[in-house]
Amino acid sequence: MTAYDPDNIFAKILRGELPSETVYEDDKTRVIMDIMPRVDGHCLVLPKAPSRNILDIEAADLSACMATVQRMAIAAKKAFEADGVTVQHFVEAAGGQVVFHTHWHVLPRFAGISLKAHTGEVAPAETVRAAADRLRAALSED
Amino acid sequence: MTAYDPDNIFAKILRGELPSETVYEDDKTRVIMDIMPRVDGHCLVLPKAPSRNILDIEAADLSACMATVQRMAIAAKKAFEADGVTVQHFVEAAGGQVVFHTHWHVLPRFAGISLKAHTGEVAPAETVRAAADRLRAALSED
Repeated sequence: MTAYDPDNIFAKILRGELPSETVYEDDKTRVIMDIMPRVDGHCLVLPKAPSRNILDIEAADLSACMATVQRMAIAAKKAFEADGVTVQHFVEAAGGQVVFHTHWHVLPRFAGISLKAHTGEVAPAETVRAAADRLRAALSED
Repeated sequence: MTAYDPDNIFAKILRGELPSETVYEDDKTRVIMDIMPRVDGHCLVLPKAPSRNILDIEAADLSACMATVQRMAIAAKKAFEADGVTVQHFVEAAGGQVVFHTHWHVLPRFAGISLKAHTGEVAPAETVRAAADRLRAALSED
């Protein structure tokens, strides 16, 4: 397996070298908004410790990520009054991975509405911030 | 949230009332082949305890599932000499869920090859068994 590259964009976000819309943080994990959302409210759960994906992540980091994925799935459903949620993890480029720091996609879903394709188009900052605010509000009600 | 229905097909498989091609089992989890594979080697990680999806699963079961997902991702990559892996969890029908017992899809992926659509077509038993044998062999080499 290819080694972890500490200059990937999520590592830079975690070090504060790049901005992000952070909606949740604990000892081991951080949740940021996807700036190329496939649906309004699309967020990403990251372990703070370096790992490339599920093939090399340590067990404690994986468990911590999943507790946060669960928390965000519940928050996303509530925040957007969603009918469902889709959770995805992509391993290596062939598996759909674009940034090589472990992350889990959490996507609110609505009956009859497909996810937008991953076009690489960056959403307006105010759209992403508004979705982040809804997630933060849902999290704060717990 | 809708209550857990103990007559869903994965619950029946876990109780031995329906057959399955099981490739791995431990105290808290079991891995069966998807009989409608979107790629050769498509398997499903199930918690043995009842839960509908990530919204209601208990923390210990979720952690156990993810340890098994990690094990299966590593095995799938090795067994099929895959370039990557995709991991999916679907929550409620709008999120893509078809069977309402928590499960994680683990799909070996190959550069340039898309997943087949979920057509509902059942694969020949010998095809599924051959893929299961490859996964078992990869697991036994650990």
